[in-house]
Amino acid sequence: MSKQKIAILGAGPSGLAQLRAFEAARRAGVQNLPEIVCFEKQSDIGGMWNYTWRTGLDKNGEPVHGSMYRYLWSNGPKECLEFADYSFDEHFGRAIPSYPPRAVLKDYIMGRIDKQAISKYVRFECPVRWVSHDDRTGKFTVTVMNHKTGEQESDEFDYVVVATGHFSTPNMPYFEGVEQFPGRVLHAHDFRDALEFKDKNVLLVGASYSAEDIGSQCYKYGAKSVTISYRSNPLGFDWPEGMEERPLLAHFDGNTGYFADGSTKEFDAIIMCTGYLFHFPFLPDALRLKTHNCLYPDNLYKGIFYQHNPKMIYLGMQDQYFTFNMFDAQAWYARDVILGKITLPEAEERRQDMAHWLDRHERLGGCCDAIDFQASYIRDLLGPTDYPEFRVEDQAALLKEWQQDKQAGIMNFREQCYRSTVTGTMATRLPASWLEIKDDSLESFMSLDFIENKRFDKVD
Amino acid sequence: MSKQKIAILGAGPSGLAQLRAFEAARRAGVQNLPEIVCFEKQSDIGGMWNYTWRTGLDKNGEPVHGSMYRYLWSNGPKECLEFADYSFDEHFGRAIPSYPPRAVLKDYIMGRIDKQAISKYVRFECPVRWVSHDDRTGKFTVTVMNHKTGEQESDEFDYVVVATGHFSTPNMPYFEGVEQFPGRVLHAHDFRDALEFKDKNVLLVGASYSAEDIGSQCYKYGAKSVTISYRSNPLGFDWPEGMEERPLLAHFDGNTGYFADGSTKEFDAIIMCTGYLFHFPFLPDALRLKTHNCLYPDNLYKGIFYQHNPKMIYLGMQDQYFTFNMFDAQAWYARDVILGKITLPEAEERRQDMAHWLDRHERLGGCCDAIDFQASYIRDLLGPTDYPEFRVEDQAALLKEWQQDKQAGIMNFREQCYRSTVTGTMATRLPASWLEIKDDSLESFMSLDFIENKRFDKVD
Repeated sequence: MSKQKIAILGAGPSGLAQLRAFEAARRAGVQNLPEIVCFEKQSDIGGMWNYTWRTGLDKNGEPVHGSMYRYLWSNGPKECLEFADYSFDEHFGRAIPSYPPRAVLKDYIMGRIDKQAISKYVRFECPVRWVSHDDRTGKFTVTVMNHKTGEQESDEFDYVVVATGHFSTPNMPYFEGVEQFPGRVLHAHDFRDALEFKDKNVLLVGASYSAEDIGSQCYKYGAKSVTISYRSNPLGFDWPEGMEERPLLAHFDGNTGYFADGSTKEFDAIIMCTGYLFHFPFLPDALRLKTHNCLYPDNLYKGIFYQHNPKMIYLGMQDQYFTFNMFDAQAWYARDVILGKITLPEAEERRQDMAHWLDRHERLGGCCDAIDFQASYIRDLLGPTDYPEFRVEDQAALLKEWQQDKQAGIMNFREQCYRSTVTGTMATRLPASWLEIKDDSLESFMSLDFIENKRFDKVD
Repeated sequence: MSKQKIAILGAGPSGLAQLRAFEAARRAGVQNLPEIVCFEKQSDIGGMWNYTWRTGLDKNGEPVHGSMYRYLWSNGPKECLEFADYSFDEHFGRAIPSYPPRAVLKDYIMGRIDKQAISKYVRFECPVRWVSHDDRTGKFTVTVMNHKTGEQESDEFDYVVVATGHFSTPNMPYFEGVEQFPGRVLHAHDFRDALEFKDKNVLLVGASYSAEDIGSQCYKYGAKSVTISYRSNPLGFDWPEGMEERPLLAHFDGNTGYFADGSTKEFDAIIMCTGYLFHFPFLPDALRLKTHNCLYPDNLYKGIFYQHNPKMIYLGMQDQYFTFNMFDAQAWYARDVILGKITLPEAEERRQDMAHWLDRHERLGGCCDAIDFQASYIRDLLGPTDYPEFRVEDQAALLKEWQQDKQAGIMNFREQCYRSTVTGTMATRLPASWLEIKDDSLESFMSLDFIENKRFDKVD
């Protein structure tokens, strides 16, 4: 039997998890590993975690992948995204606070990657142009644009792993009058530097993570006022003076926004925090996942294998409480299917399994329910693989605490500390409040005098 | 023989010219016209001339096509872009000034289109995903994403006409330190509203049409200062106070720009007016034009037919002094080749013809030379078709006058008037200076009291 070939699309956290899973097998002495090629649009690994100053299209004319901004700090405790096979302690050699800035988290995520070992798999600046499937041979043809050479390349593969993420293509609604608004109108995807909005009256449309975090950023860096407009429910945090929530925007007249409650306000800039689209312009319909952002997209067996062609593998397509270690669980499972260690059931049995999860998914109540659901999803994946055991349910408990801590103080929850479920290490405390620490670089953060936590339980 | 099928990609000025050319043949009683499908990414005809408030990606997650901004006025005399088969007089019923705002020009361009007649050809919100060519059958397969249905569609065609433009995909260079610049950094493609830059110190990088026009816009709408940085040569206009040119930017430190002459200046925003890339992500290498922006791209016979597969037709891929009527000349010529009225010579003869033009192109001196070159290119196309005769050389003379008028006064050349080469009508004068007229809507412009020009020569 000739060697299998796998195409991994994307070298962000999901794609890297897949590479790491195969590397782990190689190190464990598994023979006859497939040939792997990872195609990456950007010029470095890291996906979303590569900060870019660019917006819109990148230097090669491709849509910019990154949605991260300067001064972004983790909005969830690092203890909930710790890899089971590479702890924060192993990476940093000492305890650090629970909410690090982007650069620090990126350093950790990339730290477990043996760059030399994986660099031979990754083809940079190679966005995928088109994927086709030959039903006769069962093979995929992947065509990429190699921007380094200016030429396209095509090759055949037995499996395609789509790890291109789903927080890169803005969902941008229209509001009447917005085309005449005399200031900047942007999507959260294009938000880069809060200092641009210093002394400005900023309107954020949307009531999810982006609005909450970009709103807090703008406040921290000196916006004159921050108004968050919600469709269904307000975020409901105890906002500081200068921040407020209003119901749905109705329309604009010049720089004045009109809201559903009849109120009006003048703005200098509008930031649409209105979510993202699932966008796979390189996939034909027969291979293309169609879903909105949720915890259990339909037609993905185990949340991974495309029902109509299970050699089409999707990683990280769920809405995410859990992140990196969920991608790991998926990647290890996918690897073992590819290696033949796990046998996929027939279509009907896969359909039944999905129906069971979809049914449970439909009956979810609040966010605690949702966290437990995703924890059991991950637990289900972990069983059959050799991914190191980690305490999924304990992480779920931390995620619930996190929700409460945010409610208790949206401007200071990042000063909370949590205990690692992997090593048992208690996080250290920031020496100042999050609002006071304005330099977010790796060097600056790591040179802070973190305060050791003597207590075994969470600080309050 | 079964009916031929033609795919036109794009319903902007070039694509519409192609539709109009076939419509003209139909009205002239030509039988056995091919079946035509025009695929358009946007939800309306007009291409670049559709103003959009969106930047980056559009509502369907596709790259935004439009690079136009609010308050944009034509930067060249309307007399140089007049259709030979549809005059300004016919459209507006009276003389208007030579430099109208975007909305007025768009009204004219769209005015000659019988929307009902062409609407049956155009498929909106259908960006092309992939084009392939079967060397055996000689047919193209075009696959588009129909965003209205959420499903893809594929069909076979005998010819593909690429009319997707080349002023939509930004060329965005990197300058050291730009990633730490504490304000907005954007490409001219994403520039929308000059009011965003009121009271700001704006840096424009680049010394071509975008820098010249966006700089003037920012000045007109109240920027505190406008600095234009050039690589090779300054634009050299007599700028008003508050505008200046500086040599090439070296790097940034915070909000300070360092220039090649050792000078520095602090900025609030950076606008890269650094041109566009030719970008055809839907075309395989074998069909894909590779060129930079110039008056005679290589491998296009008559500037239209792709040398390696002349059923692959490109419209409007030249740098442009002439615009709409050049697209017309190309579209009429392409139509007559498709209809078999003109027979394409063999590859070697096509190569020789291109070599002749490329040789002349290489020896071009200044802009007068370039204008004459494009005029003779158009003249060469007009000969064999029935496109109405128009006075290309007279338009070339106007284009040269325009260059001089800009040199004479960059802030008031739009107050000049020119005579139509199609109807002989002299343009009327604006009742106030361009700097004073700040409302650029069609209604507002058309309600101005234009001043009739009694003189037969140009006003001074």
